[in-house]
Amino acid sequence: MNSTNYKKTEYNQPWIEQRADPYVYRSADGSYYFTASVPDYDKIVIRKAESMEGLREAAELVIWEKHESGAQSIHIWAPELHNIDGDWYIYYAAGDQADVWEIRPYVLHCTGSDPMADAWEELGMMQAASEDAFSFHAFSLDATVFCSKGQWYYIWAEKTGVGKQISNLYIARLETPCRLATVQVLLTTPDYDWERVDFWVNEGPAILKHDGKLYLTFSASATGECYCMGMMYAREDADLLDPHAWTKLRYPVLASDREKGIYGPGHNCFVKAEDGVTDLCIYHARTYDEIIGDPLYDPNRHAYWMKVTYDEENRPQFHYEANSDF
Amino acid sequence: MNSTNYKKTEYNQPWIEQRADPYVYRSADGSYYFTASVPDYDKIVIRKAESMEGLREAAELVIWEKHESGAQSIHIWAPELHNIDGDWYIYYAAGDQADVWEIRPYVLHCTGSDPMADAWEELGMMQAASEDAFSFHAFSLDATVFCSKGQWYYIWAEKTGVGKQISNLYIARLETPCRLATVQVLLTTPDYDWERVDFWVNEGPAILKHDGKLYLTFSASATGECYCMGMMYAREDADLLDPHAWTKLRYPVLASDREKGIYGPGHNCFVKAEDGVTDLCIYHARTYDEIIGDPLYDPNRHAYWMKVTYDEENRPQFHYEANSDF
Repeated sequence: MNSTNYKKTEYNQPWIEQRADPYVYRSADGSYYFTASVPDYDKIVIRKAESMEGLREAAELVIWEKHESGAQSIHIWAPELHNIDGDWYIYYAAGDQADVWEIRPYVLHCTGSDPMADAWEELGMMQAASEDAFSFHAFSLDATVFCSKGQWYYIWAEKTGVGKQISNLYIARLETPCRLATVQVLLTTPDYDWERVDFWVNEGPAILKHDGKLYLTFSASATGECYCMGMMYAREDADLLDPHAWTKLRYPVLASDREKGIYGPGHNCFVKAEDGVTDLCIYHARTYDEIIGDPLYDPNRHAYWMKVTYDEENRPQFHYEANSDF
Repeated sequence: MNSTNYKKTEYNQPWIEQRADPYVYRSADGSYYFTASVPDYDKIVIRKAESMEGLREAAELVIWEKHESGAQSIHIWAPELHNIDGDWYIYYAAGDQADVWEIRPYVLHCTGSDPMADAWEELGMMQAASEDAFSFHAFSLDATVFCSKGQWYYIWAEKTGVGKQISNLYIARLETPCRLATVQVLLTTPDYDWERVDFWVNEGPAILKHDGKLYLTFSASATGECYCMGMMYAREDADLLDPHAWTKLRYPVLASDREKGIYGPGHNCFVKAEDGVTDLCIYHARTYDEIIGDPLYDPNRHAYWMKVTYDEENRPQFHYEANSDF
């Protein structure tokens, strides 16, 4: 956790190995927290450092472990740490050993002010609005929350379909950190070829605020070389629960690059760099495309990061490039 | 079928009684054909006249009856007559007495050139593209077809969901009159309150071409007073299979009007008036809102029509008004 003694990170080299669905939170005091899915999908870990580079070698603390059986007993996925009105929460997804694909979203709450030292309590499954007959009835995961204009919103992936299923992204406003205030609205479904490789998937939402707009990145297709990142955006002053306030880009913004040896990038998040200004994009990828067996159980999805740059229209750009100072 | 001896139709009075999902086709020689769902949902009927008003009293011909059992044995719904490259087809939906909600889309083909005189043959269920794992696996109905820039397209309503279901509209390109060339694309889902009353429904698609644009109207919510018409549009030269080429209006374009006594307008179609220029909108509605039992089995959805007008932006407008000459 020594922020001055760090090895330079190359953007196209793994930053933290064997951590998928990487998530970084920068607290008000400048500290960085990191969490992610671990290869055994059996626990939630956090590490803390004073810098992004410090996170690489920081000790990892297990703050929660899967249940022995029943709900939350397998497939502990994609935790995110958020501070809502001074309290710490972790949003994550979990399955049931009796039905390992019965994935639902859950919430943990920190009983104190220090997520590394204070105890965490379970708030249980995320609750839909009372009049919502659709949310969290199927495979649901990858929730993120964000605040805009004083309102907190929840975006998650959920599958629908009568046979083979499609994973869409939905949005709702939060009533409390563990209950939705509004009925689900469909934000994006796999519309294009690049979202439909092997499986029709939109998942892994992440919000980036820049220049009066909200950018929503998401991941598409199956968890292989085809996995990639798409993007939508809306004006901050728009009605974020109106799906037609969002514009979806026709092509992915980040995809595999054989030359650089980066395969299946996605499930990203955003955080400010230590300068408080530069936006960083943290994502996972593999260094090879030949996977034996189910890609889900291949442990080598590593966390990477890159700087976000902006084009002449102030839209975020994502490029694999060598690191530079900031 | 005397086009000169007709009673003036008031737009806000029923035009043809007890005919729901009304559909009118105007052939190249100026003849009008009318078909619709009949209250018993047991057959497909056509009538022909030289004018819209003539259709009102024209004799109705039964061109097909439901099967005794199995597929197509109940709930014969929403037939549409189309001429594709010189041949006549009827697109319709039907259920199975063994599972009355197992609604699927079917196609009839006329063996000759006169849809009123020549025999009709069954082409069977509409076929999805071979790589499409999603289309026609659930409650599917209300198909329409249209030609744009030399390509034929098929738009239909289909439900999705793991429990309670949502009816969406999908589009694909046609390979043949009874087979899709492309995998389904989601065009619209019930996004707004007015599409979500009692049931979350988008159905009854209809295409209107005007001033270089394609307008797609559809019906929303349950079949009661809440039933209403929404609209989307795309430029004719856009990629019509790109759902983001379509813009959806935030509010319905036609809804119940208690003062005029019109309840639950929807499931419309478009046809040219006898002047070959004026666009007419044919739709169904009820004259009362108090329905005993399931609205689906209340026979009094009547066919109405109105002129389409255009605003300063050349967008279609739908108003209940007294008739006028053209």
